[in-house]
Amino acid sequence: MDMTIKPVGVVRSPVKEPSLMARTGDLNWEDEAPPASHADDRISEIVIYPEFADLLHGVEDFSHLLVLYWAHKVDATGRGLTRVHPIGRKDLPLVGVFATCSPARPNPVLAIAVRLMERNGPTLRVKGLDAVDGSPVIDIKPYLPSYYSIPDAKLSAWMNQIMEEMVQG
Amino acid sequence: MDMTIKPVGVVRSPVKEPSLMARTGDLNWEDEAPPASHADDRISEIVIYPEFADLLHGVEDFSHLLVLYWAHKVDATGRGLTRVHPIGRKDLPLVGVFATCSPARPNPVLAIAVRLMERNGPTLRVKGLDAVDGSPVIDIKPYLPSYYSIPDAKLSAWMNQIMEEMVQG
Repeated sequence: MDMTIKPVGVVRSPVKEPSLMARTGDLNWEDEAPPASHADDRISEIVIYPEFADLLHGVEDFSHLLVLYWAHKVDATGRGLTRVHPIGRKDLPLVGVFATCSPARPNPVLAIAVRLMERNGPTLRVKGLDAVDGSPVIDIKPYLPSYYSIPDAKLSAWMNQIMEEMVQG
Repeated sequence: MDMTIKPVGVVRSPVKEPSLMARTGDLNWEDEAPPASHADDRISEIVIYPEFADLLHGVEDFSHLLVLYWAHKVDATGRGLTRVHPIGRKDLPLVGVFATCSPARPNPVLAIAVRLMERNGPTLRVKGLDAVDGSPVIDIKPYLPSYYSIPDAKLSAWMNQIMEEMVQG
């Protein structure tokens, strides 16, 4: 079975480099650890390649989209991690990669719900996309609350701690 | 850049075959079109392969997970579709594949939020997974309401129609 991803487009973002990298078997910040933050307000563009542009017909009727993209800065080391300190913080427990949102994972396919601001032909202007510039786009799907919205989902204690610090931050 | 997916596990589901297949440039039901329905109550198992089992450490502290899997029944024809009638219904408008939830898309990576019922070592028992038996698992992520929950997202008119029929159905 061919499980090879063909990029259908590319992300254009003001953020050029990831700040958190996989090194020596764990996650480490490139500089010092910044406060946890959301990409909530960031505006990015998704440019769909000409051969896939017609597949966008009708996406403009949805307020939000689920975007799948490839975290292309994750290398073989990053794909081989087992347990990590969440967002590189040594004060948080060492947990399995599948319990984290780290881009460094066996298949670095990231999923995020974004607000669709505008569609201009093959270009989507979106709010809240956390991808760095140049990330290959894998898929665009309509965001359906009945599939994806579970407001009362319970988190682990350490993830709750991160979320609370983000709100206060 | 290597964008090849390596399966990290496999889905064990009571549903053995997809009912909707891509044929002759559109989606068609294998038999007659059933009423639209959710996989909400279906219980499935996700069996993670031994080499990736340790990556699950800590997922049991989350009530819900986001599961990415490969729709392995989608062939080259399915990956080449451009516009389709949603869920194969000719009474609905012909829209681009990216405006639909069809498994038949350039990269058949499907994403679904499921409830984690139980973890037994490398095996996750989950509720609401819409994957057919044998689907390769691509990734497991913690479900975070702040990332994925947008209860008031707006849908297209035809998608609203499908959703209303589902509730009534």
